[in-house]
Amino acid sequence: MPRAVDVQDRLRLVQDAVVAIAARDGFGAVTVRRVAAEAGASTSVVTHYVASRDELVRSTIVREVSGRQDLLQAATADKAADAALRALVRSAVLGTDQQSHRFWLAIVLGSPTDLVLRMELQRFNNWWDDLVQRFISALDRPPQDRATLLDAVAVITDGMIISRFEQDQEWSLHRCERTLDVMLEPLLR
Amino acid sequence: MPRAVDVQDRLRLVQDAVVAIAARDGFGAVTVRRVAAEAGASTSVVTHYVASRDELVRSTIVREVSGRQDLLQAATADKAADAALRALVRSAVLGTDQQSHRFWLAIVLGSPTDLVLRMELQRFNNWWDDLVQRFISALDRPPQDRATLLDAVAVITDGMIISRFEQDQEWSLHRCERTLDVMLEPLLR
Repeated sequence: MPRAVDVQDRLRLVQDAVVAIAARDGFGAVTVRRVAAEAGASTSVVTHYVASRDELVRSTIVREVSGRQDLLQAATADKAADAALRALVRSAVLGTDQQSHRFWLAIVLGSPTDLVLRMELQRFNNWWDDLVQRFISALDRPPQDRATLLDAVAVITDGMIISRFEQDQEWSLHRCERTLDVMLEPLLR
Repeated sequence: MPRAVDVQDRLRLVQDAVVAIAARDGFGAVTVRRVAAEAGASTSVVTHYVASRDELVRSTIVREVSGRQDLLQAATADKAADAALRALVRSAVLGTDQQSHRFWLAIVLGSPTDLVLRMELQRFNNWWDDLVQRFISALDRPPQDRATLLDAVAVITDGMIISRFEQDQEWSLHRCERTLDVMLEPLLR
């Protein structure tokens, strides 16, 4: 059924265009017109697949988030709780390319003024928190203050992603891992 | 000399407009035309003060950065090294409003494609690293791996700023301080 494949491929190209624009210029720049131009298509091709700009944004985020969730779940599968927490942070920081990180930061930055972004970000953060909380509860010696450990894991993950942006050259893998170890080990000990 | 005051006031309004636009929509949206509209002035008023869009951006960042440096220096003055490091991170995270944080994130996100942003970010980061390195060297027991502690301090600071954006409601002061303590104390002990 070549037609069905075509439809999936085209929708994928349109969503790729959303990712590229948002990662480069933020979600304020994501309009049906600019997405069409970026994808090399007419606006009617874009609106053939999605009813509105918001639906286009939402479907793209859902695709990106579920790809990320699959990666994170694979990285933590069959691991003891402390190893799973290390693997989760490592995978979130190192398992994704810079464009995906920029796309995600664009979601964070746009969320106060864009309900679609806010809802999808909240959905992902709830999923992340549930996962981290599950690992924290399963630690050999769960800390007294589990809420603070949950916050600290999020801060370390976010901070590593941003700090790597700020550097003239990207941090080496070794440098990232050493910094993660220094921050995570005292919390998981 | 009311004229001289007027000039300073007007330049300040124009720079305020740059901060507002960049914080809201990123530096891609900062053009002389849009800054003039945001400031309620004509483009010729804007170009009366600055020769180009880049000079406008640079002068605004210099103003914002030097304000931030003054705050950070005041927060750390006359403190022992470990207390100064805690105060530095606390002030960077809590001493600035959300618009300033968004402005700074816009600089980080725009820096790969905008030389002005990259140069000013690098200048600030060099200043920050010098300051943190000075405190690290002055610790009672400086750690063996000073470069990693320098990285960890940056990650914790950046991560706290981003994590607070992501929450539905802003983190309480208490929650921020508890999370900072949990991460910083093992590193400074």
